[in-house]
Amino acid sequence: MRKVLPALLAIATAAVLPALADEGMWTFDNFPAAEVKARYGVTIDGAWLDHVRRSTIRLSNCTASFVSPDGLILTNHHCVESCLASLSSKDTSLVQDGFIARRRDAEPRCATQVADVLQVMEDVTGKVAQAVAGLDETAANEARKRALTQLEQDCERDSKLKCESVTLYQGGQYFLYKYKRYDDVRLVLAPEADIAAFGGDPDNFQFPRWSLDYSLLRAYENGKPVKTRDFLPIRFEGPAAGEAVFVTGHPGSTARLDTRAELEFQRDVALPNWLLRYSELRGRYIQFGKGSESAARIVEEPLNSIENVIKVRRKQLDALHEDALLAGKGEAERALRAALAGDPAFGDPWADIARAVDVERNLYLPYLFLEGAGGFNSANFRYARTLVRAAAERDKQNTARLREYTDTALPRLERQMLAPVPVYAELENLTLSFSLERMREWLGPDHPVVRELLAADSPDSLATKLVAGTQLADPAVRKRLWDGGAAAIAASDDPMVRLALAIDAPARAVRKRYEDEVEAPVAAAAEKIAAARFKVYGTNVYPDATFTLRLNYGTVTAWNEGGVELAPFTRLGTAFARATGAPPFRIPDSWLAVRDSLDMQTPFCIATNSDIVGGNSGSPLVDAQGRIVGLLFDGNIHSISGNYWFDAAKNRAIAVHPAIIRESLRKVYRADAVLRELGAR
Amino acid sequence: MRKVLPALLAIATAAVLPALADEGMWTFDNFPAAEVKARYGVTIDGAWLDHVRRSTIRLSNCTASFVSPDGLILTNHHCVESCLASLSSKDTSLVQDGFIARRRDAEPRCATQVADVLQVMEDVTGKVAQAVAGLDETAANEARKRALTQLEQDCERDSKLKCESVTLYQGGQYFLYKYKRYDDVRLVLAPEADIAAFGGDPDNFQFPRWSLDYSLLRAYENGKPVKTRDFLPIRFEGPAAGEAVFVTGHPGSTARLDTRAELEFQRDVALPNWLLRYSELRGRYIQFGKGSESAARIVEEPLNSIENVIKVRRKQLDALHEDALLAGKGEAERALRAALAGDPAFGDPWADIARAVDVERNLYLPYLFLEGAGGFNSANFRYARTLVRAAAERDKQNTARLREYTDTALPRLERQMLAPVPVYAELENLTLSFSLERMREWLGPDHPVVRELLAADSPDSLATKLVAGTQLADPAVRKRLWDGGAAAIAASDDPMVRLALAIDAPARAVRKRYEDEVEAPVAAAAEKIAAARFKVYGTNVYPDATFTLRLNYGTVTAWNEGGVELAPFTRLGTAFARATGAPPFRIPDSWLAVRDSLDMQTPFCIATNSDIVGGNSGSPLVDAQGRIVGLLFDGNIHSISGNYWFDAAKNRAIAVHPAIIRESLRKVYRADAVLRELGAR
Repeated sequence: MRKVLPALLAIATAAVLPALADEGMWTFDNFPAAEVKARYGVTIDGAWLDHVRRSTIRLSNCTASFVSPDGLILTNHHCVESCLASLSSKDTSLVQDGFIARRRDAEPRCATQVADVLQVMEDVTGKVAQAVAGLDETAANEARKRALTQLEQDCERDSKLKCESVTLYQGGQYFLYKYKRYDDVRLVLAPEADIAAFGGDPDNFQFPRWSLDYSLLRAYENGKPVKTRDFLPIRFEGPAAGEAVFVTGHPGSTARLDTRAELEFQRDVALPNWLLRYSELRGRYIQFGKGSESAARIVEEPLNSIENVIKVRRKQLDALHEDALLAGKGEAERALRAALAGDPAFGDPWADIARAVDVERNLYLPYLFLEGAGGFNSANFRYARTLVRAAAERDKQNTARLREYTDTALPRLERQMLAPVPVYAELENLTLSFSLERMREWLGPDHPVVRELLAADSPDSLATKLVAGTQLADPAVRKRLWDGGAAAIAASDDPMVRLALAIDAPARAVRKRYEDEVEAPVAAAAEKIAAARFKVYGTNVYPDATFTLRLNYGTVTAWNEGGVELAPFTRLGTAFARATGAPPFRIPDSWLAVRDSLDMQTPFCIATNSDIVGGNSGSPLVDAQGRIVGLLFDGNIHSISGNYWFDAAKNRAIAVHPAIIRESLRKVYRADAVLRELGAR
Repeated sequence: MRKVLPALLAIATAAVLPALADEGMWTFDNFPAAEVKARYGVTIDGAWLDHVRRSTIRLSNCTASFVSPDGLILTNHHCVESCLASLSSKDTSLVQDGFIARRRDAEPRCATQVADVLQVMEDVTGKVAQAVAGLDETAANEARKRALTQLEQDCERDSKLKCESVTLYQGGQYFLYKYKRYDDVRLVLAPEADIAAFGGDPDNFQFPRWSLDYSLLRAYENGKPVKTRDFLPIRFEGPAAGEAVFVTGHPGSTARLDTRAELEFQRDVALPNWLLRYSELRGRYIQFGKGSESAARIVEEPLNSIENVIKVRRKQLDALHEDALLAGKGEAERALRAALAGDPAFGDPWADIARAVDVERNLYLPYLFLEGAGGFNSANFRYARTLVRAAAERDKQNTARLREYTDTALPRLERQMLAPVPVYAELENLTLSFSLERMREWLGPDHPVVRELLAADSPDSLATKLVAGTQLADPAVRKRLWDGGAAAIAASDDPMVRLALAIDAPARAVRKRYEDEVEAPVAAAAEKIAAARFKVYGTNVYPDATFTLRLNYGTVTAWNEGGVELAPFTRLGTAFARATGAPPFRIPDSWLAVRDSLDMQTPFCIATNSDIVGGNSGSPLVDAQGRIVGLLFDGNIHSISGNYWFDAAKNRAIAVHPAIIRESLRKVYRADAVLRELGAR
């Protein structure tokens, strides 16, 4: 069960040297086209890159792509699960039942979804450096944020695009990424969860696999479907084994450039704490769902969501228990330090980070429960916190605000605040009581905030009072408070607003300490390390994932698992053979009804060696001609350690094969209009 | 949050050198009386040791002591919680309500409790060595078990006592421990859970503390209270700060002599796996308990039980994340290896263990879920497994049986089998469904056993069928199957019995592999390391805890927590000040009713630096004159790392002060007969 040598090599190299194998999450301005040409004989030119970039979409939580000139969008089922849940109720579940819009005017809007398309990347590293020149760590940390806010503000004024600052290479580079934003995104088609997530949590992150994890959305503008020249046609026959393929998308985050001290913090503190708390919440959710059919329906989406993350973090913890990984990190750090030994200004940034991480060990729990709201797990509380803070922050100058309340951030925040999303009081009671109880456990019953909140209450009774008393589940109430600003907040007697106000000062206090004592010295040290890395190893490296646009290359290929050579394709027939009749191994009635007409040899899923992580969900798998040959939705179990390093031997991505999408549209969902729009014969 | 130097010193020394500080869990035949004399001026002679030993009781799960000549037994409330639960029902909870027997004939029997008093310790190291001489690892492992079974059998025939073999120093010594067993143990008095476990899980393993964690039992023989000359009088005024005190009891298990490879296995595999699964079960229990008052009652005891272990294992994992601890282990191993470098027969037993542990990493999950029944968490399944195996094993020669079914073990097993203990179908459904689901998660849906069990069922539906169909909750049904032996088992159509039969072969197969490939080489190597340790460091060391009788020495003293010097005593008044009115910070009505009559200055809990672990619960804290000056019930949070090493600066034990016991008996419970029996003025 321990990783063997190839992984150890990769560990050391990922940290210091240009990437080997088909590794790397490359920015579009630094894609190693020559390497790809040399390795696969495939030419990726500027026109290809521009077209693929403009066809790629960033959703709020995933990747997607345009697949027709009428704004049709292909992404995963699990990427629209929260949209499906928000269109559901206690009595009906679009997650379970699926959805097909038979006409365009029957396509319902996803309340909070947006589709961003990257137009321009502007390097602003120099401008940021100028803003912090000569300042000490703490002042620099604040000045940097102000500078980024100002840059975004100026950019939005000048470009009329959405502008977001992006930190690459842990502070080695700063960019402004400029997006065309579509904020009217509607649901076109989603299969039933039973087939979309066939295998459920047991099969999650597994290959071989049989999950029909796709869905279709459509972008609208001014109430009409978006017209676009940039879209990716689907090659329904799919790729050949061994074929070179490309993944465009938005890998969420990785920690491959983190220092050993930072990884040890994850291993010792952050991951175990999270896993323990969320494993318990998983148990509470499951037991809650057994109470009634409606309970099962409303808990399905949040349960699926945390089960996925539990599996991810469990395997991340496993990865960090590979002592050789950490030893390799240490080696790489020593090597880089030795290479810079002649530079007196270099100091020892790794030791600086280790010291900051020691501070973080002590700040972690109060930060998590108060500022991170880990003690207040409730949609109503999140509304209250946002309302309270937005009111306070909007009264400040844009550059003086907390970064999540700048003018760039406000429109989306306002939309989320006003969106009519169902809030279930039973679930609110569950999550809020749970989190209050765990806050008392981890901070201790004698922590001042815990004492004040629970002096005459149990977590249960306090949660019940708060949930019963708050009106924030009503969007109209939220709108009144949002529009009313600080005066309305001060006048509100909503108990959740009062709670958010009551903990605001201690929460901000621990945030300030965290920013000054952890974030600031880490930022200063990481910038030094990034500069050292550029100096010693050049720029032929890729930055850690930041949920910004990247391009990977690789091939269609499976791997050797415990001596068994796996094939890179699965087929429909095996799904039927594995079905038990009970979730998560149940084939939906819609499929059973047409079983005899289905081609059981239809390819179902594909394995590739693409270097992907969470956030790449919904990414198109693209061939050398820019056609979609698969829809990425998962990685294998070994891919989870990709958060820390790339194991070329075993790290694999998993995609839905286009042929099974066509088979489903034709024979099961009979979605003829969609098929025509996709150009399927 | 990292341990500082004193701990590191202790790490290195615990593994190789005689104990420093007030460290050590000494066997009664090797107590360092001279050291105690030198350090505290206190004489502990043979008569003292014999008297204290014969006054000390091993319960099935805890320690206790005789406190009157009429067999009255003092132990913790949490040690009788399962007895209280077994005397409860859906409608009444003795755990919540407490219990007082106003007359001796009103003392109800605890269905499965026993009281063992150690009479003789016989060294059989030579006999065991003889039995395994010349055999290879695997054969030696089997021969050793046969020899221990034979020794126990001969001992019970000759002595008429209960004889149990004991492995000390990881195989460095073997003993027969001979006990006088009382198997009629009855309940005399238990406070309400609200005061006995005041502070609940949040305060568990915390000091300062206010938990009245005591209860009283009585041993009976031939239907009458046991008469004993060996009992410990209570010194109700309690000890002075700094006074030398002794803890007699049965520390359950420690891993201080484990090798680095074994500790890494715990850190990487066993602890995270357990914590994730049981955190989820905790969540399911809590949510289940919210369903109704009766649900809350029946889940209370199992929930308390796993919350306690979750806290223990969470802190154990924290301890193993102290990289310096593992580094110290490695250093100690290198030092001992170097000291033995001249001995060619010595080889490298640490490498042998590391190899075996690598095998264990692969066997762990199937062993856990199949043989360890981690996939079948159900009281009914445990009955079925025992019935199936006992029937098969009883048909074999005593020495050929699995060790848990030898003639020595059978009487207690039979008693547990036939005891009328309530089994709640709702809880059975919960735990069985949970464990089947997690077995499918961790072994994977394609594991042959999982496939076979869940081919046409969900974990829920299978659990429901099994629990609804089984009759094993009825003691009469169990008796018929127990008495009927193999023929009755073969003829049974009870679904739980059929399940236990169906998985018996794969479970035994993985057990055999584990015994041959992990247990055998580890036993051989550990024996070598133990011999080396004796050779280099002599016998002035203590063995790891094995739930056998030990004696510790120490003083009444608190510690410095984050710069704050704590006092070793708490007082009753503070409990009232901390009460919130809601569990687990609720003072029972019985106490509120007499509040004005209580002396708020009454000492409540005591901190000492005694080196104790789980299993010491219920241990008397004894002064130099052999009088009880406290009742041990917990350790502070730092004591949990005592599983791996003793941190003299911070590891503390927590005891109930005798004065609060007297105050409660006098003013709250008005238990005059008990007070007289205890000789309270």
